[in-house]
Amino acid sequence: GPRCRYVSKAAPKTQLEYDYDGPSMKTSVPGPRSQALTKQLGEIQNVGAVNFFCNYEESRGNYLVDVDNNRMLDVYTQISSIPIGYNHPALLKLMANPNHLSTLVNRPALGILPPENFPDKLTESLLSVSPSGMTRVQTMACGSCSNENAYKAMFIWYRNKERGHNMPSDEDVSTCMINKAPGCPDLSILSFNGGFHGRTMGCLATTHSKAIHKLDVPSFDWPMAPFPRLQYPLEEFTRENAQEEARCLEETEDVIVKWRQKGNPVAGIVIEPIQAEGGDNHASPDFFKGLRNIARKHGCAFHVDEVQTGGGATGKYWAHEHWGMDDPADIVSFSKKLLTGGYYHKDELQADKPYRIFNTWMGDPSKNLLLAEVLNVIRRENLLEEVTRSGKALLNGLYDLQAQYPGILSRARGQGTFCAIDICDDATRNSILLKARDKGVLLGGCGDRSIRFRPALIFKEYHVHIFLNIFNDVLAEHK
Amino acid sequence: GPRCRYVSKAAPKTQLEYDYDGPSMKTSVPGPRSQALTKQLGEIQNVGAVNFFCNYEESRGNYLVDVDNNRMLDVYTQISSIPIGYNHPALLKLMANPNHLSTLVNRPALGILPPENFPDKLTESLLSVSPSGMTRVQTMACGSCSNENAYKAMFIWYRNKERGHNMPSDEDVSTCMINKAPGCPDLSILSFNGGFHGRTMGCLATTHSKAIHKLDVPSFDWPMAPFPRLQYPLEEFTRENAQEEARCLEETEDVIVKWRQKGNPVAGIVIEPIQAEGGDNHASPDFFKGLRNIARKHGCAFHVDEVQTGGGATGKYWAHEHWGMDDPADIVSFSKKLLTGGYYHKDELQADKPYRIFNTWMGDPSKNLLLAEVLNVIRRENLLEEVTRSGKALLNGLYDLQAQYPGILSRARGQGTFCAIDICDDATRNSILLKARDKGVLLGGCGDRSIRFRPALIFKEYHVHIFLNIFNDVLAEHK
Repeated sequence: GPRCRYVSKAAPKTQLEYDYDGPSMKTSVPGPRSQALTKQLGEIQNVGAVNFFCNYEESRGNYLVDVDNNRMLDVYTQISSIPIGYNHPALLKLMANPNHLSTLVNRPALGILPPENFPDKLTESLLSVSPSGMTRVQTMACGSCSNENAYKAMFIWYRNKERGHNMPSDEDVSTCMINKAPGCPDLSILSFNGGFHGRTMGCLATTHSKAIHKLDVPSFDWPMAPFPRLQYPLEEFTRENAQEEARCLEETEDVIVKWRQKGNPVAGIVIEPIQAEGGDNHASPDFFKGLRNIARKHGCAFHVDEVQTGGGATGKYWAHEHWGMDDPADIVSFSKKLLTGGYYHKDELQADKPYRIFNTWMGDPSKNLLLAEVLNVIRRENLLEEVTRSGKALLNGLYDLQAQYPGILSRARGQGTFCAIDICDDATRNSILLKARDKGVLLGGCGDRSIRFRPALIFKEYHVHIFLNIFNDVLAEHK
Repeated sequence: GPRCRYVSKAAPKTQLEYDYDGPSMKTSVPGPRSQALTKQLGEIQNVGAVNFFCNYEESRGNYLVDVDNNRMLDVYTQISSIPIGYNHPALLKLMANPNHLSTLVNRPALGILPPENFPDKLTESLLSVSPSGMTRVQTMACGSCSNENAYKAMFIWYRNKERGHNMPSDEDVSTCMINKAPGCPDLSILSFNGGFHGRTMGCLATTHSKAIHKLDVPSFDWPMAPFPRLQYPLEEFTRENAQEEARCLEETEDVIVKWRQKGNPVAGIVIEPIQAEGGDNHASPDFFKGLRNIARKHGCAFHVDEVQTGGGATGKYWAHEHWGMDDPADIVSFSKKLLTGGYYHKDELQADKPYRIFNTWMGDPSKNLLLAEVLNVIRRENLLEEVTRSGKALLNGLYDLQAQYPGILSRARGQGTFCAIDICDDATRNSILLKARDKGVLLGGCGDRSIRFRPALIFKEYHVHIFLNIFNDVLAEHK
């Protein structure tokens, strides 16, 4: 078809002196050097998921450079895990500071022998962005590990509540050693259809996004409730969406009652504020308020998994802040953009004894160091406001393109730059992803046929328009 | 009682220019500064397991310095996770090299966008010490994560073997999404009484060392077999020990048959070469050979968990090398001294499709960088030979002390510096640990009443004798 260049309002290039000017492509992707390295790595690992190999030294700001010297605008950022772009000068300076060498070479067992600055560093970094009502935080190595331990904290809390005290019986102690109830109790975590909470075995029992994640791995008999399937734009379908959310809340409550009746009560509910891997599914603040009330009514802990949504991409540090609640959750887990895994929790969710939530490393102070500086940059550069501004430009651009290509695009949605759009079918989606990459824009898929946008927090309106123009070119070829 | 100074053969101080001369104690431990910081951290986390706070900048070689300026000979090394001591000059130099800054600030999603040097770095580091028969390795963030994914790899392998091909049925695909068989199959991992494999929910179902680890956490109906309870020194009880091992092997086979009969077959067997957390329990090469044969006979994968034993402390990179087998295992997992988690595996244990063994980070190239240099140091300084020499001195010293204090000490045992000794009772053990610490030696407990020795690989005969003399002083006070 005729090329139909997207007419974007001119946007001034924001001063990011460390950023590149735009994409620059030398080969199709993966290029020959990436292909050779993929073959080499294939002798060591399954490389079926490898996109291409990167030159991280040359990557900068919003641009990822590959080993064939292709430079791509990165709207996926290592599965949403690079907070302020590649090689940010503030982070390079931090890591070049010889005062931090010791933190890099002496990784402590944080639970027994923390470094002198550990409480201050937690206060200055993670606790400076604590969710409402939470003054406690536990670091962990990664997102899965964070959720696993959050689930354990909920089980421990629930059992102590059941007992009315925290003294396990002799039978508890003896049966737990052989994996039997009551020591290893029949308790469950309720999760949602389409949810993703990680791939270790506890997490995986709450993950319901794609079969390939779960296939052949034993699981727990834990309940799944429906996550609302809303119509977008949300503000145009308020009545229909409210009905759908009411249906989901009702069914959730039914499931809780049913699992209690069959002797496997729900100790905790885990949910993402926006289902990410499962296809960028949103729900309204009212839905989450209703769910919070159901959790309270039935004595279940409420765990908000912000591994993908946390860290600023929605325009707030935590997506659940958009709900406007004083008491949004009992536990909030994080990883990715926070650079360290971990979870915040209310006082009563703290394990009553040492060594119940424990492992050798329990996080990594070198990551706390990086996080503290990332938060400094976010504040200094007003990045949350910038994200809100860029996000509006991005979503408006997606609405425009959706109007222009109704046969291809639908359901544009998002909060901040945490946006997504649906493609008519899976094959077209994958073709668009590859073509966009060859034109210098790196995107990721999610769900069955969605594209998710996960730029860094330094993605400005200027970058939005670079993206929209290239995306438009790709769509024009598919028309 | 009268002080009975241990008479150690004079040992020359080995040249470790970066090491301190000996312990130096200013306060009892924890000192006032540690106590204040513990109180501060107590507002944020459960601090019941915190020993004291550390000054990692001032720590060097075999000596850990705390925030009250106490300097302790470290025979525990952050739960066995510091390979070549604190602030090793080679590691400081490595981290000060500006060429590595990019690796420190741009953590990639290794499964999709690896850095250019990733295959070379794996080859140079982890693959240069591959267990026999294994040319493949998958990095992970920590020990638990490594074992969780190793279990998944065994389940996937087992189910494909059962199917005779790797095409899941429609029923597999639909049932797995709701945590049901056959998609989430009734399969199990067999583990051993006293074993420890981590604290995430899959790992925890194979951990049987202490109730506090498992209490109140739901588990799987997975079988446990007896680990041999041997008499020490092993060479004096060969007949009795062989009988005990035969009994355990027989029972293991019975358990495998029983679990298959009840519809929950054993897909994999996981075992530590020396049970560490569970009390430093050893078994003979013949036992492990027998177990390997049982795994083969019953079609179970054989997973050797070297998270604590790996990395050189037994005098070989892997404790299983002492078995002298060409085909010791199907999977070997590691973490701690290797600085990155992960597992080696045989070709057929590689997941057949991408995204089955996957997460965002899948390790951390900055840790691979450190590991490569640690391996250089081990080779350059012949540290495995040194460990063997120090280990002999340590074990002989423990035998001497055991003869001298038969009412307190028993069952001295070890391989390399990976040694342990039993104390008459739990209370005395804990008292000895605290008194040794106040005299400048940091030790760790394991099992019900054992002390485990886990020095770094740079722990020389010179340090053995410093330790033995102080340990003797402590024992004399308990006589």
